[in-house]
Parts: sequence; structure tokens; C-alpha cells
Amino acid sequence: MIDSNYSGRGNVYPKSIQKLIDLFIKFPGIGPRQASRFVFYLLKNGGVDELIISLEELKKIGNCEQCYRTMEKKGGLCSFCSNSKRDPLIIAVVEKESDTQNMEKTGAYNGLYHILGGVISPLDSESPKKLHLKSLHERIKSLLDKNGKCEVILATGATTEGDMTALYIDRVLAPLKEHFKDLKISRLGRGLSLGSELEYADEVTLKNALANRK
Amino acid sequence: MIDSNYSGRGNVYPKSIQKLIDLFIKFPGIGPRQASRFVFYLLKNGGVDELIISLEELKKIGNCEQCYRTMEKKGGLCSFCSNSKRDPLIIAVVEKESDTQNMEKTGAYNGLYHILGGVISPLDSESPKKLHLKSLHERIKSLLDKNGKCEVILATGATTEGDMTALYIDRVLAPLKEHFKDLKISRLGRGLSLGSELEYADEVTLKNALANRK
Amino acid sequence: MIDSNYSGRGNVYPKSIQKLIDLFIKFPGIGPRQASRFVFYLLKNGGVDELIISLEELKKIGNCEQCYRTMEKKGGLCSFCSNSKRDPLIIAVVEKESDTQNMEKTGAYNGLYHILGGVISPLDSESPKKLHLKSLHERIKSLLDKNGKCEVILATGATTEGDMTALYIDRVLAPLKEHFKDLKISRLGRGLSLGSELEYADEVTLKNALANRK
Amino acid sequence: MIDSNYSGRGNVYPKSIQKLIDLFIKFPGIGPRQASRFVFYLLKNGGVDELIISLEELKKIGNCEQCYRTMEKKGGLCSFCSNSKRDPLIIAVVEKESDTQNMEKTGAYNGLYHILGGVISPLDSESPKKLHLKSLHERIKSLLDKNGKCEVILATGATTEGDMTALYIDRVLAPLKEHFKDLKISRLGRGLSLGSELEYADEVTLKNALANRK
Repeated sequence: MIDSNYSGRGNVYPKSIQKLIDLFIKFPGIGPRQASRFVFYLLKNGGVDELIISLEELKKIGNCEQCYRTMEKKGGLCSFCSNSKRDPLIIAVVEKESDTQNMEKTGAYNGLYHILGGVISPLDSESPKKLHLKSLHERIKSLLDKNGKCEVILATGATTEGDMTALYIDRVLAPLKEHFKDLKISRLGRGLSLGSELEYADEVTLKNALANRK
Repeated sequence: MIDSNYSGRGNVYPKSIQKLIDLFIKFPGIGPRQASRFVFYLLKNGGVDELIISLEELKKIGNCEQCYRTMEKKGGLCSFCSNSKRDPLIIAVVEKESDTQNMEKTGAYNGLYHILGGVISPLDSESPKKLHLKSLHERIKSLLDKNGKCEVILATGATTEGDMTALYIDRVLAPLKEHFKDLKISRLGRGLSLGSELEYADEVTLKNALANRK
Repeated sequence: MIDSNYSGRGNVYPKSIQKLIDLFIKFPGIGPRQASRFVFYLLKNGGVDELIISLEELKKIGNCEQCYRTMEKKGGLCSFCSNSKRDPLIIAVVEKESDTQNMEKTGAYNGLYHILGGVISPLDSESPKKLHLKSLHERIKSLLDKNGKCEVILATGATTEGDMTALYIDRVLAPLKEHFKDLKISRLGRGLSLGSELEYADEVTLKNALANRK
Repeated sequence: MIDSNYSGRGNVYPKSIQKLIDLFIKFPGIGPRQASRFVFYLLKNGGVDELIISLEELKKIGNCEQCYRTMEKKGGLCSFCSNSKRDPLIIAVVEKESDTQNMEKTGAYNGLYHILGGVISPLDSESPKKLHLKSLHERIKSLLDKNGKCEVILATGATTEGDMTALYIDRVLAPLKEHFKDLKISRLGRGLSLGSELEYADEVTLKNALANRK
């Protein structure tokens, strides 16, 4: 019984192993060597069934209709948006869902979120359309109509794209600001991060740290 | 409709996402941050079905009865062991299957393989039992009985464990060597690797390079 | 003519070369390999005389009597302390002189400095005595006596030692604060540093960034 | 007394400090930040006089008339070339003096050296002229005339430049080889270096390791 099902010269692995390696290579930050290590890990340690079950579950995942966080079911509001103990009048606008993890770890934030689903790229003029910006505007407007006030924290990264995105949102919300003086739009504070020494701080950060001294 | 299915304080992801993150964390070299990036990559880019199909295929993978390489079917010989163009009298003993990939890439090897499935660890006295050593001895003995000669290349790594493993195999095969003078046991050459400068070479490597000069 | 002046077995360099290597090894962040590369660089490219002249000049360097910055002459005030265009009522207390370089690069600081000459170490109870703390207290007191007000910016690093040092100075200056309500003591702002993404920010930094949002 | 001797806007250090920083920046692998750290290290810890004395000694350093190793005096032979216990019929041709340090550390080499003073660069057609090649040819010829035999170990690095240089020397010595059949020219062995695993070995190294198996 001969196994002739190989993917050709150079590639010594069976086709189905090579196929799985190719899928893992597409994962963020994974190269061919680590991808093949993943496959041999699964072959050696088992757990393929468990992984398949878990991937099947992933297909049921939906997004919150208000803030776009993932949730077990499709449709409805997530556990934060439906939690009466969280402040519905503070909305942190973040680039992606994993940012909420770090915000929650601080234990210092009790408002809601709005997940943009990306950043505005200076090289992609279509990028604003891909973000949840229209729904953000509607959400804020509706909040202001009902409550007359709210705070939007533009919690994007301190990167070029993060800054561009925050600036863009600031402009999108500007008309609302004219009608509702109690719409507060803020950005995360800039300055020295934990562990920074002055000797290694860049000029912009140090300038911010000086301006924000207190 | 409220989504209450969360995995508790601190963890902000739905349970099924956290479960998949936990599975990916077990992958070699993967931490929590990259594991969660994998999940969000799958959620954003799709491909979950393709991944599941590929994982199902993985369950059909078997091992060659002679050299332990993986193959599409269970049972029988792999494409190398059944290939009449490869030299059956040369056997490269390697630690793991991925080592064969690099050997094949050299284009300079046309013998067969024997995959040990690991190395002998100085801290684990049971480790020799976990390797395909008994079958290696039988395979070599059978080859010698039939052909009177064969070459075993101990192609383990130039590491402490690789050296211990090669030494161990050398002893296991020693009795055969007494009866068959045409059993040749060799090890991969040691010396400067591509790109090495003398200034950065360690003493052992440089000593080997001097001894193996030609 | 035989050169027998070698520093012994193992060391193949002449004694005077080995001696210079040993001196360079003491330089911060320099190991044996780079130290020997320094010496061979000097041997190959010349410049030894120029280096000697420059080192002779270094012996004439003094420190400002007020802020402890280095200056060409011994005695007197430095170019900042004697510059009427800089604000003498703002004093940035920094750990070491190189921190002033980064502060000046921001172009956003026009006050004077006070160089501590180190930080308070939690493991060295003698460390406060090694810093220019007494002279800082006298300098601030004298300023307040004359002008009734001044601002002290505790511009130490965002490290454990930097924080301990700032806290210590704050306590040292506390008695002055009771008598002079216009003594303002501030610290550099904390938050996201340039280029930070939320995903990679530590909890403390993100907590500070939230608290300092504006 | 005002210190006005500063090197201008942006630079806050006294001129003589900046001058020394500029000299240290020219050292191999040293940037502005580490260069300034060197200067402040010297200012804080003293040792300037000792460094100056050591640099003065460096000016007396000469090179061996035969192998170009550095030595305390100018003129004559070095401690290796004049050592009757070393084999004068084996010459290791190395790129630079620091390579001899590693060769000696192996304890496995007892011949003499010939320091080329660099490598042949594919981009610099003048580079062969800068090396001690003519004197190498004369040295080997003279040895062969007297003794009828000798071994030249081309101990250049396993880099593109090292290989080019070895090839070039091989051609330079080719005419001698025709007359003296006991001129042996060898190169350092190639193969797995200490600690290499097959999985991470490049194809060229693994090919060499296979060819040089023993």
C-alpha cells in the first residue's frame, strides 16, 4: 500500500498536513516553521476534536447591536450595554475589541464602549467607510436627544492612525457639539508611560508630559 | 435579549471565544495576546469552515510502518520508503519529522529516514523508551541480514540532547557492528555554519572546524 | 628582538592593549568583545592623540554652583542659571544631566534645572545623602524668601526609583509648602507615550491615561 | 563668572564634553546616547588619568614583521613567531587579530598566524591591495624554499567576503602549489555549529554537514 498523495517536490509532508500548515500561515504573525509546529503539536498531543468543537461554537458568535462587541448570540445587546451598573452616558471609542480587555483590567472604567473595527489609514481613502462611524454618530445623537449630555472618550492609540481617527471622529461629532454644550469629547492622557526614563523618552512624549504636569 | 454568558470578572470575551483562546494558548510559542488575535482574525476574515474541514482531514493521518513519517492513510509504507529511486541502504535517524523537510531541501540526500519522535533527556530516564529505538534496531538488523551492509547517519542536532541520543543509538547498534563490519555509523559534520565569523564562533565549534579542515 | 611582554596564557594581546581593553570594559554597557574592537579601531584609524587631548580637557570640567550642570570652568554659574531669558522661578528636578538634553529638545521648557546626581534606591538607605537634596531645599527656600513663589517640577523617571525619589523630595519640601502657598510642586504627566497602542499598554499607564484624559 | 562656552542651540553640554562625545560616537557600534554615557561615567567615576596613560602606551604598539600581530615594541617578531614550541610550518590566515584570540582559546592550534587586515569586498576592487597578501606569498615561498613543505589554513569566516578572500588567496598561491606538491592548503570545516538543531539549520550548512559526515 503506497502513499502517493504528496504535494510535490520540495514538500515532504502529506497534502492534508501541508493544507493545514498553509491555513495556519495566514494567522497573524505565523510563519511556515511555526505553522508546521502547530500541526505536529496537534498530531502528537491530540485535541483536534476539541478544537473543531470550539471552532463550530465560533460560528454562533454575534455582535452587540449597539457597541459591536462579540457575544454568544446573534442579535440583542451585550452584557455591558445591558448592565444597569455601567454608566450609559460615557462611551469609550476603541479601535478593536481586544482594547476593551485592557480597559477593563484597569478597573477604572465603568462606561460603555463603541468598537470602530479598525482605524483610518492615510493611504486608504475608503477606510472611514469600513468603520462603525455612522452608527456612532446616531448613537451619540440619540443619547443627547434623550439625556442632553454624554461623554465620548476617543480611546484610540497614540499612533498616527489612531490620532487621524480621533481627529476624524471629532469632526464627525462637531455639529452635535454646537447643539449640545454638554457633549464632552476627550482623549486619553499623554505622557510618560510606566517604567519610562527621561533619557529614553522621545521629544513628543516629554513635551506632553511637561504640558500635562500636575 | 441579554447576553449573560460571560466567563466572569476580568474576562470580557464571550465564553466560546475565551475557550478557543485557551486552546490556542496551548499551541507552541503562543501567548494570550496572540491567541486572542488568532480568534479575532478568524472572526473577521472567515475561513472557520475551511479550518474545520482541514482539521477533520488531520484525523485520517497515519504513520509509515517503517520510518514513522506521517502519511495520508493509516498503514503501509510512505512515499519515500516505497520509492525505488531512493537508496534503501542509507538511513538518516532524525529527531522529528520536520527535520526531514530541511534534509530534503538540501537536495543532497537520497536515502531513507527513521524518525525517533524526540530526544533522550538527561533528566528523564524513561525518555529512551518513548523513542522508536527498538524498531530502529530491528530495521537495521533486518537490512544487514539481507544486504550485509548499510549506513546509519545519526542526524540528531548538535545539542546536548542530540549528542546524548546519538551516543545512545551508537551503543544500541554496537553489537550489530561486531557482526557486520559493513555497518557504517556516521554523524553530521561539525564546523562553521553559513555566515559564521571567527570572532563570534564558540570554542567548541572552532575546534571542530580546525579538526575537520580540508 | 623578541616581544615577551604578554599578559599570560589565554590572553594573546600585548599587555598594553589588554590594559586598555580592561579600561573600556568598565565603560557602561561594554563587554570584552566590543572593548577589544575599540582598541583595534584606535590602532587602525588613528585618533589616539585627539582622544588624549579631549580627555585632558575633560579634567577642567566643573559643575554649576546652583544646578550642578557641567560647565567648562570650575566655579560660578552655568549658561542656563546665568541666562536672563530663562525663568528662574521654575525648577525641573532631574535625575542626571543627560535628562536635561531631552528636556531642551522639546523646546517647551524655559525654566532652570536641579540635577540630583542619581535616584533614591529602595535597597540603599544611604542613597538620599548622595543626592543634591540639601542644596535643593536651600535653593527653593531662598527663592521663596525673595519672590514668594516658585514651581518645582519633579521630573524624575516613571520608575519605582524615580517615584520614590519624587515622593521623598515632596516630603522634604512639605514644610516650605506650609509657609508659602505659592510653592507649586508638580510631576510630569503620565499616560500613553508616542506610538502606544491600547492593546500593548500596561494597566497602570492606561489607568493614568484614563484619569488624565482631556 | 558666566560660562558662555557652549556649542550652540540644541546642544546643552559644554563644548569639551560634546567634543569627547563626538569622538566616542566614532567608536564601532556606539551611538550618541551611549557616547554621552561614557563621558558622564568618566566624570563621575574618575579614571581619566589612567585612560590617558593607557592611550599613550597604545602609541608604542607595533606589528610583528612576519604575521602582523600587535606587539609592545615596533620592529622584530612577535611572541608566537619567535616561540620555538609553535609549529612554523602551519600558518592560519585570519581576517583580523581578534580572530587569533578565539583560535587560541580552542587550545587546539599550535601553528603561526598571518593577519590579513581585512577581507576582499565584492564592491571594492581595490580591497585586495589593502590586505597583507604580497607578504603572505613571500612568506610561504620562503618557507617552501627552505623546508619543501607547509600547510596554509585559510581561516577566514564562512561569509561571502570570507569565501571570496579564501578563493583569492587560493589563486595567489596556486603557482607555488605546482612546484611544491607538499604545500597543503586547507579551509576550516563546515557543518553544524554547537547548539544547532536541524530544524533551524540553513540548507547550505546542512548540505555541508551531510558531505562532511564521519
